[in-house]
Order: sequence, then C-alpha cells, then structure tokens
Amino acid sequence: MNGARERAAVGTTARLMRSAAAADSARFPLAAFRERLRAHGHRSFAVERVPFADLDQWHAEPGTGNLRHRTGRFFTVEGLRRTAWGDPGPGAVRPVMVQPEIGVLGIVVKEFDGVLHLLLQAKAEPGNVPAVQLSPTVQATRSNFTRSHGGSAVRFLEYFTSPARGRVLADVLQSEHGEYFLHKRNRHMLVETGEEVPEHPDFHWLTLGQLYRLLHEDRLVNMDTRSVLACAPLAPASAPATDRDGGGVWHSLGGASRPRHTMEEVVRWLTRARAGQSHVSRPVPLAEVEESGWRRGPEEISRDGGPFRVVAVRVRTAGREVGSWCQPLVNPRGAGVSAFGATRFDGVLHVLAQAKEEPGLITGPEVAPTVQCLPGESAPFADRLLSAPAERIRFDTVLAEEGGRFLAADNRYLLVEDDTLPAIPPPGYHWLTLRQLARLTAWGHHVSVQARTLLVCALAAAADA
Amino acid sequence: MNGARERAAVGTTARLMRSAAAADSARFPLAAFRERLRAHGHRSFAVERVPFADLDQWHAEPGTGNLRHRTGRFFTVEGLRRTAWGDPGPGAVRPVMVQPEIGVLGIVVKEFDGVLHLLLQAKAEPGNVPAVQLSPTVQATRSNFTRSHGGSAVRFLEYFTSPARGRVLADVLQSEHGEYFLHKRNRHMLVETGEEVPEHPDFHWLTLGQLYRLLHEDRLVNMDTRSVLACAPLAPASAPATDRDGGGVWHSLGGASRPRHTMEEVVRWLTRARAGQSHVSRPVPLAEVEESGWRRGPEEISRDGGPFRVVAVRVRTAGREVGSWCQPLVNPRGAGVSAFGATRFDGVLHVLAQAKEEPGLITGPEVAPTVQCLPGESAPFADRLLSAPAERIRFDTVLAEEGGRFLAADNRYLLVEDDTLPAIPPPGYHWLTLRQLARLTAWGHHVSVQARTLLVCALAAAADA
Repeated sequence: MNGARERAAVGTTARLMRSAAAADSARFPLAAFRERLRAHGHRSFAVERVPFADLDQWHAEPGTGNLRHRTGRFFTVEGLRRTAWGDPGPGAVRPVMVQPEIGVLGIVVKEFDGVLHLLLQAKAEPGNVPAVQLSPTVQATRSNFTRSHGGSAVRFLEYFTSPARGRVLADVLQSEHGEYFLHKRNRHMLVETGEEVPEHPDFHWLTLGQLYRLLHEDRLVNMDTRSVLACAPLAPASAPATDRDGGGVWHSLGGASRPRHTMEEVVRWLTRARAGQSHVSRPVPLAEVEESGWRRGPEEISRDGGPFRVVAVRVRTAGREVGSWCQPLVNPRGAGVSAFGATRFDGVLHVLAQAKEEPGLITGPEVAPTVQCLPGESAPFADRLLSAPAERIRFDTVLAEEGGRFLAADNRYLLVEDDTLPAIPPPGYHWLTLRQLARLTAWGHHVSVQARTLLVCALAAAADA
Repeated sequence: MNGARERAAVGTTARLMRSAAAADSARFPLAAFRERLRAHGHRSFAVERVPFADLDQWHAEPGTGNLRHRTGRFFTVEGLRRTAWGDPGPGAVRPVMVQPEIGVLGIVVKEFDGVLHLLLQAKAEPGNVPAVQLSPTVQATRSNFTRSHGGSAVRFLEYFTSPARGRVLADVLQSEHGEYFLHKRNRHMLVETGEEVPEHPDFHWLTLGQLYRLLHEDRLVNMDTRSVLACAPLAPASAPATDRDGGGVWHSLGGASRPRHTMEEVVRWLTRARAGQSHVSRPVPLAEVEESGWRRGPEEISRDGGPFRVVAVRVRTAGREVGSWCQPLVNPRGAGVSAFGATRFDGVLHVLAQAKEEPGLITGPEVAPTVQCLPGESAPFADRLLSAPAERIRFDTVLAEEGGRFLAADNRYLLVEDDTLPAIPPPGYHWLTLRQLARLTAWGHHVSVQARTLLVCALAAAADA
C-alpha cells in the first residue's frame, strides 16, 4: 500500500475508534434523538394480510407457480431443492426468495467537533414491529436506482453512486440469510463526506458509541444498519497505537495481543468446510414444494411445523417511495437465536464460530455464531448458552431481520462468556478473535449476517463495559 | 499473525523464490525429465467420438433432456438461461456443464539440496492433444475421493486429505471457465512434506524455475498445474529482503516499489463491477437451448457459428483409474485468446485487467486478462495485442484447457508490453501489478483461470529474461 494512503487508512481506524468511544455527542445528544424518534412513532404503515389472489402486480407464474412481480423485478418466490451430496434421491424442496440484483446499503459519515458521526434514517418497513427502526442512510435496491417502481428518488443516493461523492471507507459485498434467500447479496458502503449535508426530519447523526448504546434496545437498530456497521474498518491488519483511543472496543478486538490461530489457519478451516459441503441446492418451480409437505393455500404457503410461512400483505403509507403496494413476505414462526460463546485465551477474547452451511449462500458455508437457529431449531451449545447465568451474559437483545422481506422476524442475539467451552473445538467449529471476525467481514462473502450483527453487538458490549 | 508463524510464511516465500530462480536442478535435470516424458508418449488414450445414444452410463433425463451419469455424479450438461438485467424478455439459452462438487488440485512440494521441488504427474486426459501433459500431483474430483467410479485409489491423495500430511503452503477455492461451467470450483493446494515420497514412473520432481521454462512449450503444462502454481505464496502483503533471491520473478512482482493503485482501490473496482452486473443467469432444462438456435442432434449439440459444441466420446486406456469409459466433452471451435497488455509505471510492470462477467462465475465478474476471447470472438485491445511486433511480446504460447471436460481446447496466451496503452483505462478495466494479481489470486474467487495462467506465464517470462 502507498505510504500516504496507508496513513489515511490507519487514520480512518483511529478516527472510527474515537467515534466508538464517544458514548454521546455534544452536538447531537442521545436525549434529543430519542425525542425526535418518538415523533416518528405515528409515521407508520397500515399493513394487512391479503390472499395471494389479491396481490396487485404480483402473480403465480403459469407452470412453475413462482410468485413474481409483473415487471420481473424486486424478487420472486420459487422452490429450492436440496439434496445430500452424492445421494441420488430427490431431496427436499422448500420455498426460497430469489433476488439476483445487488442493492446498496450505505451510511454517510461526517466529522463534527472532531468526532465521526454516522447518518441514520428512522425508516418504516412493512414487516418490522415496531415499523420504524434505524436504517442506513440509504437502503436501495437496484430497482430503486433505476426507478422501476415509479417512486421518488432515494434521498442521499448520490453519495453511493459511482464515482462516490466522498471518501469511501468501506465497499464490500455481503450475503444475507441463506436459509431464506438464494444467492442474495448487498453492497455495503460507508462514505465520508466533508460537504454540508442537508437536514431532514427522518435523518439523524449519531456517533458509533451512541449507536452501540442503542443496539442494546430491542428492535431499534435494523438489520441493514448492523450489517453495514460490521464493515467499518476497525480492524486493519496492523493496529497502530492511536487505535487504542477506542478503549474497550480496541481491547475487545484483541488489542496488540496474539490470537490463538493465525488468519491463514482460520481461512483454511473455512476453505476445508466449503470444499466439504454436505448438500447441493438448486432452484426449482415453487409448485414442487408440495412434494415436501408444503401446502400452497390461498393465504399462505406453509408446512406443519415448518420454521416459516410465506404470506401476502397490502401496505399503505404516505412517507415511503410509493403510497401503497402489495408484496409477499416471509413470516418466521417465532424468534430465532444467534449466540456466540466466548472465552479468553491469554487474556484475549475469542468467540467460538462455526462454518455453517445454508442452502442459499453463494460461496458455501460462512462463518456463523456458535449457535444460529431458526425458530424451533435446536443446535449444539444452544442449551448451555441460553441457560447461562446473568453474570456471564455480555449482550442479550431481540433484534429484527430485514422488514422489507420478512414479517415480524425476531432473533435473540446473545454473547456469553463461558470458560468451560472446549479449548479444542469440535469439527466444524473454530476459535476466532473479534479482530479476525472483523477482517473476514471486510473481505466479504465470509461471515453470515447473524455473525456480522453479533460482531457489532460484541463491540457494543465492550464499549459499554 | 503470530511472530513465529509470520517468519515461517516469509520463509516459504523466500524459498519459493529460490526455487523460481533455479532454472535447472542438479538432482532432477530437465534433460532427464524430457527423456522420461518421451517414454510416456505411447501411454495415451484411444478416444473415439460416439453418438449420445451409445454413451454407456449416461442418459438424457426424461423431461429436461439434461445429460447425466447414472449415479448423478461427475457433472451434468444442462441449459443456462441468461437475461439482461431488468429485461423481462426470455434472454438466451446455451448448454452449460454443471459440476457442484469441489475437487482437489494438489501439488506435493519437497526440498532437495536446499531447493523446493514440485511433484508433477505426466498424465493423459481424454480431451488433451497431445494426451499426456504435466498435471498436478493430484487431480481428484470428490467422486474420486469416494471411489464412485469403482477405480483404484488416487495416488498421493493422502497428502491433501484432512488433516493434510505435511505443511500446507496454499489452500484456496478457485473458479473455472465461467463461459462453460455453472459455479464450478476446485480446491487448490500446495503441501510441503519432509517425508520420503515413493518414486513412480509417471511422477517427476521439478523446480519452479524448471516449470517456468517448460511453460513456454505448447500444450505441455496443463491447466490445473498452471492454476495451482498461481496460488503459490510468492506475494505476501509485505516482501522481506530475502525474497529478492527470486531475481527476475521478484522484480516482476513489483519488488519493493509502489503500485499505481492500492489494493483497496483494486478491490473496490471489482466490487463495483460485481454490484453492477449486466446479466442474470440460471440453470434450465437442456431442452430449452433449442429456443436459441441450438440443435440437439444424435452426435452433437451445436449452433451455427457457436463458439463450441457438446460431443460424446468413448475412451479406452490401461493406465488410468478405469480401463474404459464414456463421457460428454465440450469442444470449442478453434483456439481462444487470452492476452495481458502491460506497461511500466515508475518502472513497475502493471497489467491492464478487466472485470469480466461470465455467466457461470459464482460471485460475479472476476479479474480477467485485457483480452479473454472465446474462439471467434472479438474484444477491445485484441487487434493491437495480437499484432504487436515481436520485440514487445514477452510470452506467447498455446496451452490447453482441462482435458477431462474439454476436447482439444486450445488458448493462445500472450503477454505484450505496450506503453501506448491508456494510462487511464476505459470503464471496466484497471491497472494492477503482478503482486496485486497474485494477492487477489491467493484470496480465491477473484481471478479467472485464464488470468491465473497468465500470472504464471508472466513470472515465467521474467524468470527467463
């Protein structure tokens, strides 16, 4: 890397660390933010369930039964057939959302009084409960870019188009929910501007430290925001002394200490897992889900005891791109659990990660939390982490998944310190420092959206401590 | 990275550099190798074209028309439908090979007389002309691992199973020919052993420098070998002084000089290209290729003027896993071209790369050579690179693609120094140093198989100079 540019990158990390250590902002105090957020409470949606037959602009494609928008854009609901590797049998089919276009999740960053602030949007999404949560500055599908639904332009989008209006701090592609989506990816961006940014009642400047505090509140910081925050360059390969200004956050990343395993060992573990995938998945017509016990009813596509169902809603609003629209949503049956078990080796916090195979992940298994369960699922380590005594729980909050595709999708996010976890992990698991998790995240396509959320939660817990 | 491990990694690079500088080996001289290779000449295949109806163990699946093996393993020939993004039309359909399993391409490395040598295999493949080329120590499909074709065990496979028998120098997943395969990936490994390795007449020890010399010979070093050599850790993030022992190779990677762009700029360029893909592809029944002018005849699946056809062969041999078998092969209509245009900026060699979209690449566009053309295709810069005067041509050799899936698939590989190339590249192109290309290769899923070949060719040209 060029000397000047390397110094610039290093400076970015130190400045982000300072923002992480800023638990409040003199210019934009949390108290005032909360006051403004309350005012948003009524700017919500009217969301009603409708039969699939009443889905304006959407139809079941003849032959396949796939649910698709008239224009072919946004997303489709199709079938996904999953077979065990080498098994000649038919495998199992489930519904899956297919969204091949890559959207942008972007946060504008700006320095006020020497501290970096991030511009968050109080935004209502049809599937979120409560509807209004904190979203990135911009949350735009490629359809938004090209205005295919005839709505108004996306505010602040110009910071993330090419060339970006500002200094790009991060720009990376990430996967999303491989249990529900086939090969979905979004572009995650942080762009710093020196310009005057126009004020708007839905948009709020917050330090990283303020965001970390808000992260402890149930269903407030939305999934896309968490996922973009996980991409903030807090963990470059070499950590200069100035990063120590981050205090608890810097220490939680491992400080200047040595990790139990090198990055090469970690990456090779993941490569082995990817090469040894147990299942193969491919899209098939939605009609084929009936083979596997799913019923395509007039109001829902569901299976007895299945972890989710597909439903249809009509949404009415004044404040969004379009006044009213219909769409399918995926509705999980209850809350999922994502939990990292953590232990200190030589004083450095390590989390126990698994290489988890999900049918829709584009490059194969990704780094997932110790426990990553759909509603009703069980998994190794789940019982002990869920029943941990309070003094070992570092983070425990219920957060919502993406409200544009999911209806009321809660996950309980947990970070539990437990020094009785096995120092030699079972096959498929590996110990990582948070710095290693952050570096894998920065590469893209390596860390599940749940693990990205928990990375940010772990930093929030450290900032708080 | 841990100090001791970092030193070990650094040591590996310096030792590989020394092997790269070893144009011959006292213990295993090139002259003796050539003598032994000539003895292999007769150990070839009898390959005959057969009608699809005579393909033992393979059949056209009722309904879809997909060509598949009785067991469902190896690979299938299906249709791939490609539509322009946002275009509601049907797009175009072509045949594609689908091989979801991840195989292993592995080279055993061992030090003799203080210099690392690589164990190459003189191996016949049914589609290669000449049949016998230099392949990695191990070239195994996952089906080989599990012995699904009832053949004998793959020799030396134990060095690459988990845990590997030796020190892993590289272990990374790479894509392969996105114009012909849907989402194909192989695991690329280099493993160093200190053990005694049993001799075998088909296996030969060669230094990297010897391999670089052999690379200048038409159709000798096979595609898998080139692709694994591209993963050799010759370009760690920081280059210590001992790497200078590599001489021309070290200098060609950029030495200690500064590249025109940082790695971050390069990665963001690729991320932008991936987010802006112009097309969407998905597997469909092979029968649908007829929509796009392909004919499924008794002996070939072909289209007038198409760049390839699908044929069927019967192979007879004594020296391979199975004495005789049938399989489909893809037969390109003539030779393709892959060429890097190169220029020196501040004395450092840079190549002009493009972010090239291919329908079957799993993560979207990858870093490809300036020109990467199928037979008969044209492309920007092709004319000027192909007509460059001899004194500007650094490398020019015809090499074969993978002979287990392709029949007589030649590519002309060219490296041309041309200081009239545009310093500000057109959209979709970017200047990279060879070190940056090598580092992207080490990450996996970032560099096309043609660009990986040309990376090795460029190092070979430098070693030679």
